[in-house]
Amino acid sequence: MKALITLATALLMSLPLMATEPTHRVEPPNWWVGMRDTSLQLMLHAPGIANAKPTLAPYPGVTLKSSHRASSANYLFVDLDIAPGTKPGELTLNVAGKALRYPLLARAPGSADRQGFGPKDAIYLVVPDRFAQGGSGKQADMKEGQDRADHGGRHGGDLAGMRQHLGYIAGLGFTQVWPTPLVENNSAKYSYHGYAATDFYKIDPRFGTNDDFGAFVSEARSKGIGVIQDIVLNHIGSDHWWMKDLPAPDWVNAWPQYTETHHARMTLQDPYASAQDRKRFTDGWFVPGMPDLNQRRPELATYLIQKTLWWVERFGLSGIRTDTYSYSDRDFLSRWSARVMQEYPRLNIVGEEWSPHPAVVAYWQRGKKNHDGYISHAPSMMDFPMQSNLLAALTEGDGPHTGLTKLYEGLAHDFVYPDPSNLVLFDGNHDTPRIFSLLKNDVDLTKIALAYLATTRRIPQLFYGSELLLQSPTERDDGKVRADMPGGWPGDKVNAFTGAGLTAEQRDMQDWVRRLFTWRKTATVIHDGALMQFAPLEGVYVFFRYDAGRTVLVALNKTGKAVELPVARFAERVAPGQRARDALSGKDLTLGASLSVPARSPLILEIGR
Amino acid sequence: MKALITLATALLMSLPLMATEPTHRVEPPNWWVGMRDTSLQLMLHAPGIANAKPTLAPYPGVTLKSSHRASSANYLFVDLDIAPGTKPGELTLNVAGKALRYPLLARAPGSADRQGFGPKDAIYLVVPDRFAQGGSGKQADMKEGQDRADHGGRHGGDLAGMRQHLGYIAGLGFTQVWPTPLVENNSAKYSYHGYAATDFYKIDPRFGTNDDFGAFVSEARSKGIGVIQDIVLNHIGSDHWWMKDLPAPDWVNAWPQYTETHHARMTLQDPYASAQDRKRFTDGWFVPGMPDLNQRRPELATYLIQKTLWWVERFGLSGIRTDTYSYSDRDFLSRWSARVMQEYPRLNIVGEEWSPHPAVVAYWQRGKKNHDGYISHAPSMMDFPMQSNLLAALTEGDGPHTGLTKLYEGLAHDFVYPDPSNLVLFDGNHDTPRIFSLLKNDVDLTKIALAYLATTRRIPQLFYGSELLLQSPTERDDGKVRADMPGGWPGDKVNAFTGAGLTAEQRDMQDWVRRLFTWRKTATVIHDGALMQFAPLEGVYVFFRYDAGRTVLVALNKTGKAVELPVARFAERVAPGQRARDALSGKDLTLGASLSVPARSPLILEIGR
Repeated sequence: MKALITLATALLMSLPLMATEPTHRVEPPNWWVGMRDTSLQLMLHAPGIANAKPTLAPYPGVTLKSSHRASSANYLFVDLDIAPGTKPGELTLNVAGKALRYPLLARAPGSADRQGFGPKDAIYLVVPDRFAQGGSGKQADMKEGQDRADHGGRHGGDLAGMRQHLGYIAGLGFTQVWPTPLVENNSAKYSYHGYAATDFYKIDPRFGTNDDFGAFVSEARSKGIGVIQDIVLNHIGSDHWWMKDLPAPDWVNAWPQYTETHHARMTLQDPYASAQDRKRFTDGWFVPGMPDLNQRRPELATYLIQKTLWWVERFGLSGIRTDTYSYSDRDFLSRWSARVMQEYPRLNIVGEEWSPHPAVVAYWQRGKKNHDGYISHAPSMMDFPMQSNLLAALTEGDGPHTGLTKLYEGLAHDFVYPDPSNLVLFDGNHDTPRIFSLLKNDVDLTKIALAYLATTRRIPQLFYGSELLLQSPTERDDGKVRADMPGGWPGDKVNAFTGAGLTAEQRDMQDWVRRLFTWRKTATVIHDGALMQFAPLEGVYVFFRYDAGRTVLVALNKTGKAVELPVARFAERVAPGQRARDALSGKDLTLGASLSVPARSPLILEIGR
Repeated sequence: MKALITLATALLMSLPLMATEPTHRVEPPNWWVGMRDTSLQLMLHAPGIANAKPTLAPYPGVTLKSSHRASSANYLFVDLDIAPGTKPGELTLNVAGKALRYPLLARAPGSADRQGFGPKDAIYLVVPDRFAQGGSGKQADMKEGQDRADHGGRHGGDLAGMRQHLGYIAGLGFTQVWPTPLVENNSAKYSYHGYAATDFYKIDPRFGTNDDFGAFVSEARSKGIGVIQDIVLNHIGSDHWWMKDLPAPDWVNAWPQYTETHHARMTLQDPYASAQDRKRFTDGWFVPGMPDLNQRRPELATYLIQKTLWWVERFGLSGIRTDTYSYSDRDFLSRWSARVMQEYPRLNIVGEEWSPHPAVVAYWQRGKKNHDGYISHAPSMMDFPMQSNLLAALTEGDGPHTGLTKLYEGLAHDFVYPDPSNLVLFDGNHDTPRIFSLLKNDVDLTKIALAYLATTRRIPQLFYGSELLLQSPTERDDGKVRADMPGGWPGDKVNAFTGAGLTAEQRDMQDWVRRLFTWRKTATVIHDGALMQFAPLEGVYVFFRYDAGRTVLVALNKTGKAVELPVARFAERVAPGQRARDALSGKDLTLGASLSVPARSPLILEIGR
């Protein structure tokens, strides 16, 4: 927060005319020279500012192009151009004859070319309020207090807590962390989850300050972990400051009466969709407490684009996870993703499109040639179809199109994606029941699932606590799914980080996950190798990751019996006599005519080493 | 059969040298002048014929291009060219110095431009052995006799039986009939279903003769019914005459030991498929009694193409249903479908690809731009994905992706098809349990399903007996699914054709089906109108068929309560005050602010008349 406070203080001091009517906000609070798109639109918010005619003190390379108001008397939108080669410094904007100083910073070296998360990475998903309390959080005068006994309340996890346990996350083998949103959610209820922003430029004080976030990202980077920011473009919280004074009546989608989205996401692909249905999907609200943003409003679209870039640039992030992706205006999403990728061509954006249909998820991935000409620039999407197939594979009987066949045919559907290896496959997330519970508390099946996650042609993402076999109801129950990480709070008797109080089963699983993802970090053929899969037979599914020099065999046996696989079936990839090493046990062996896969187990073999 | 016998007799008489070694077969038994592709390859089969050097007596326009043998000493392949403008007549082919006469017929007027079945049609699927016995069938010296008590045995239905009841089929409103295969299946067991051919050019005598088939097709045409032939390209019966003397060892797919297909059909689309898996899918056998044809053998490919054309041309068929489509060699299927559509550009071919995945079915439809460049020319495919969605819609609870949502999202998936209106949607077929049983003997749900079938953007196909609520086990049981049509046999106490002995429920359903499909014949907006669908809400699904001048509203209410639909939701298509007529009851009404849909019912309204 220090940077922001300093800036706000500076603004107040430099605008004596507005001492009684201060410029409460200038957003973005700063910008950078050297961005590829030279335009910048400032949102100024102060009582009566709308009709001001701002001018810019001469600054080489910077032009004030125009300014305009919307409906409210208290917002002014100022369009600047920052030409290539402009030097960092401070602009002076004269608003109503007074000087507003605005920082233009230099970009960090290599900022534009930063490498986003990708197939070489493994992502650890954390709900910050539920992970660990380290002391950076301050209650201040926030509306909702802390109550660990309330599943839907705030439990008090914070940035310092996450920061303290970055070593734990790195030690498990993860190279990216995705915290659910950290921006201010100052509402009286359900503020912990972060998806109802009340300020897009400010870390929630109960997590810490913007500087605490910066420290968290820096320390993560020093431990080899990138940070993915969870961004919401679709809606805000009803306590967002805009709601007291909307820039324009159409800033949020207004209906004659409260209208909820019907979640009919396929209205966007459906050749037969009704226009009204499409509108209801996109413009309907999620819940009464989350006003739905109208991204067709040009200043709002620009605002959302700029705030995205601001966080990436300001904190050195490695990627973006976009909440409720398809619910935002479709054309806006195209522009938004284009601009983000224009500024950071190697960044990654993963969108949440909660559909079991590959053709629907593929619609949103960069490079897809769509039937309706729609163009998206998001390089990645969450792989909900495969996640549902993975669960089905391990819970259903195997039939022509059920059980393991779903996993096999699901992956075969990769032909509909422009870039399947860049999809994020997850064991679960903050909205789904926990995998261990969905697999009926079966450790063996859970290991099979995670082995698949770590070895298939995807970016794997694990939900915090899966390594501890955390449980939840099997029907959606957000508060309970997002349980506290044991050991995250002073006095916790069970401690995931020290191992204290964990059951033998939990310790075994934690160690197993650590070996799996630590191995994955160096198993480069998993990152960029080809894949060959064989149709599942008799409860066993076999695939290979390979290239000219490297081969990994993965066999998933979900049956209650050890099986002997005839190696000849896989002659395209392996042969008897080859040396192999079990990736998880480290044991060496020589392939014979058959390969033994233990009952209810994954087997991962590095071949030829 | 008369034409064939005459020809064979003629051949024998004209080949005195071969009197002791007759040319047992010349296939195709005749050909036509004026085909677009001028090539013709004859297969001659006779002891020792392989090394003969045939010559052609001069015939204007016809050239003998070459001849060759395969491995067997008893097959000779003769390549002719029949130039455009060639006159009908009889060729004389000198084989080993003797004269073989070969008929070149004139094509029926308009033959090439015949209109195949399409969206204006409704198809009635019949299993001929199980439909009606009319007396054309002759046991002759066939291996399997008749036993109506055996579910897997022959029951004695025949062509005359089907012919006698064409009026019944037409009266129900159907305009196409698809009989399962009628060609000879002379095996000791399970010969009734027709999918294990022993002679590709001959109607099974137990159904009748080739001439009986011709009479059936002619009478069908006179009643406004086209005939769709069920063709098998993938396999033959193990008693096929080829099997005693294979033209070449690779005429069928040979394996070191018997190898069954694993039905992993997605090996053909899967970017990760193993070559061995792909081979096993395509070249593996269905069952030991069905040798798998190797269509990569050029003479076999040509044979299969020509026999397809022969039946279409000889009998004036309106389309082809291709069994086990994807199991044949993929490149052959492309050539085969190209050639059929080259000769009959407006014909229709519907392929059977039993997959629940639209992207897989779409792969095979003409016009699809495939990821791997594969080109198919089959205009239609069986819509297995939608059939499974239809059942799910009426048996599952409605969730984000279950129940009615499956029907809605299934149709929204039409964007993956190049021509969705040309897909054939069916209530069931000879391989699936009967719909009434799958819907738990629920007449109301069955009517909803059939109303959907008749009104959505598809070609509808009904399985014989659905109009009588015939039942079956709910797990696959072919012999029982293919039950005898009541009244098809002399002495049947229940008679679908006269109505005698039908229950009140059956009579009601039969009458309802008759009204539904009779109405569909004249409801042209169903044939070629656009479609607009609305997301299902509270157990009710509404869609429209429409164009500038015509509108039909379809509302499917699967709940136990009558619902009042707010007409305003459908303002894009209808408005209060419009006149409407209930398509099934004929009742007129005026639309109000709300529209009442009775509990567990379909409502079909013609708007504005």
